[in-house]
Amino acid sequence: MKLSNRIQSMPYSAIRKLTPYAQKAKEEGKKVYHLNIGAPDVETPKEFFEAIKNIDMDVLSYAPSAGLQELREGMAQYYQKRNIPMEADDIVVTVGGSEALLFTLLAITDVGDEILTCEPYYTNYYSYFIETSTTVSTFPTTVENDFHLPSREVIESKINDKTKAILLANPGNPTGAVYTQEEIEMIADIAIDNDLYIIAEELYREFIFDGREFSSFGTIERIQDRLILQDSISKRFSGCGARIGNLASKNKDFIAAALKLATGRLAAPTVDMIGAAALYQMDDEYFENIKTVYQERRDVIVEELNKIEGVKCNMAGGAFYTIADLPVDDADDFCRWLLEEFDVDGETLMMAPASGFYEHSENFQSQVRLAFVLNVDAIRKAMHILDEGLKAYKAR
Amino acid sequence: MKLSNRIQSMPYSAIRKLTPYAQKAKEEGKKVYHLNIGAPDVETPKEFFEAIKNIDMDVLSYAPSAGLQELREGMAQYYQKRNIPMEADDIVVTVGGSEALLFTLLAITDVGDEILTCEPYYTNYYSYFIETSTTVSTFPTTVENDFHLPSREVIESKINDKTKAILLANPGNPTGAVYTQEEIEMIADIAIDNDLYIIAEELYREFIFDGREFSSFGTIERIQDRLILQDSISKRFSGCGARIGNLASKNKDFIAAALKLATGRLAAPTVDMIGAAALYQMDDEYFENIKTVYQERRDVIVEELNKIEGVKCNMAGGAFYTIADLPVDDADDFCRWLLEEFDVDGETLMMAPASGFYEHSENFQSQVRLAFVLNVDAIRKAMHILDEGLKAYKAR
Repeated sequence: MKLSNRIQSMPYSAIRKLTPYAQKAKEEGKKVYHLNIGAPDVETPKEFFEAIKNIDMDVLSYAPSAGLQELREGMAQYYQKRNIPMEADDIVVTVGGSEALLFTLLAITDVGDEILTCEPYYTNYYSYFIETSTTVSTFPTTVENDFHLPSREVIESKINDKTKAILLANPGNPTGAVYTQEEIEMIADIAIDNDLYIIAEELYREFIFDGREFSSFGTIERIQDRLILQDSISKRFSGCGARIGNLASKNKDFIAAALKLATGRLAAPTVDMIGAAALYQMDDEYFENIKTVYQERRDVIVEELNKIEGVKCNMAGGAFYTIADLPVDDADDFCRWLLEEFDVDGETLMMAPASGFYEHSENFQSQVRLAFVLNVDAIRKAMHILDEGLKAYKAR
Repeated sequence: MKLSNRIQSMPYSAIRKLTPYAQKAKEEGKKVYHLNIGAPDVETPKEFFEAIKNIDMDVLSYAPSAGLQELREGMAQYYQKRNIPMEADDIVVTVGGSEALLFTLLAITDVGDEILTCEPYYTNYYSYFIETSTTVSTFPTTVENDFHLPSREVIESKINDKTKAILLANPGNPTGAVYTQEEIEMIADIAIDNDLYIIAEELYREFIFDGREFSSFGTIERIQDRLILQDSISKRFSGCGARIGNLASKNKDFIAAALKLATGRLAAPTVDMIGAAALYQMDDEYFENIKTVYQERRDVIVEELNKIEGVKCNMAGGAFYTIADLPVDDADDFCRWLLEEFDVDGETLMMAPASGFYEHSENFQSQVRLAFVLNVDAIRKAMHILDEGLKAYKAR
């Protein structure tokens, strides 16, 4: 029986494609430090679990397709506190940030339309481009420039009559780049002048380091009709397993379209929305503490990476990722080798080969993405294993 | 800003498109009996809520993309008890039955490919045909024949070189039809002779009335390489709000493709999978009781419908839906009118106009789908309101 061409053209997620090797390593008794995936070891606030423990219902029925009203209102208040003027009616709850992107692409593109984004970009986007039969065009950002945006001319040279939107994660994944006010204003101007939507994924809005101010696309008034915000509780509240994300837009036609798609899948999970609603009631102090935690981790991983001979990495301004350039020809092979053939006292590490985040992957075979989602001790141990691993790999 | 052609061509779900009128009726103080949607009032087993109350975790992390192992194993045991030879590795947990269909279509069709199903079919399928840029072809089934399948010749006349699969819900939604062993064997033969997949949605496998035996496609050995089973806990355990469904297939390439898609969206919700795993540990006695409950409801709704002058309905053999033909020209208008302008002592009812379930909807403007998901008293009251409503509508 034949499978579709589209599924055959879809690569396995760069983040998880080495998972079978990690599983095998664990079965052999090895401990694996997971720096491959943005799955934090930070505790999910107790508020989530308390809320779901207190659920008292006889029938677990479908929630409204747009999401539980209490959650949409909590999200709206969260935005308003950040000077992003969203109301509950501007919000559709989605099953993770993933579904938010799926709905967006279906609502604004037809088969063959194009999305413009930066390179490198979050590898799982590509699955959704294939699922929706859209294509992707990219403009380059580089480790040397801490992955900040290129000039307006470079970006506009990639726009054609099939381009429907500029898609940007801010802070960036896999780069940790935090765009300046000038950069997002430039994107706003480009979008207006070329009549494009802006799809802004701001999942890491609170994880901004070194005293930077975060500039949200949501605060720029002149793009309100073309801005689609994508969000998630996965990273913000260390609640990846809840699969609760959302779309927010002042464009009422777009929200109606998203709601049509939401209705097609009936509802997001009720219990998780109840838990998420409790999270959005939390005091902002929570974010101050979390930011400190991740900034310390960033400091440690960058320091440790720079100590290793031949390794370069960027200074992530936010989120919890950094791209490291390793002294190897093929990071895919090296990452697999670490899991299959290497350990230090029974411990090894898993990283995401960065080639999967690039359109022109052949030029970036020596890069990996590291998620600094583990505690500082674990990061130091993992970096020691990386150092020893690089020496042993070279000496094979 | 322009929306996509595909989203503009997507109708609102026939099940929920009257929801704004129902909301308005409720705001005006009316009680609304919801027979429009398959959202049972049957209590979700306590096992679900107990399992999630007992969750003791610090970090709500991503589950494996294929689903929690304990849930996949519980599902496998459930199938094996029904002589459907599925192992845990043959199963991918999905976010509801909806995602199961999305994954299936993406895995086996390319843009422009065709799916063959019966008419009427579950209206939300159509959203997924649009989302995946596939087309649909149908063969007719009729209320007079309790929606059983037409002849092999009629079905095969609808197959062309773009057809990739036959999609059938058994028992049927919106019809409640339960196919006989001969019927599913016929479909099996057609699929083999025309090299098609069979997508079998068997969500209501336990809700089979009048002592019928249920014949699952999963028990037919000669189609194991082409069978894709779709399932869900929503109806089986009255757990609609959990959004836990699954795919099951002995076709390893298909399961690998589904897993690739599952990896793209990272995971299904962890907490709900823990609850669902507890449900699949329950004794089969549960289903015996539930079957009795729904059969009684079926008996009552069919009896009451047949008492109403000018109304015809089919005798559903399973599931919890019946199609009723009403003495009105436009059931869409009548259903809206019931919500907007009619009540009996402050109570009214909501039904799903059946035209949204038909490819050739213009011929079926007088039909509605009724879900007998409410208790017997509520059904009797709702049918009284329908009777009075039909008289008042006619007398306007």
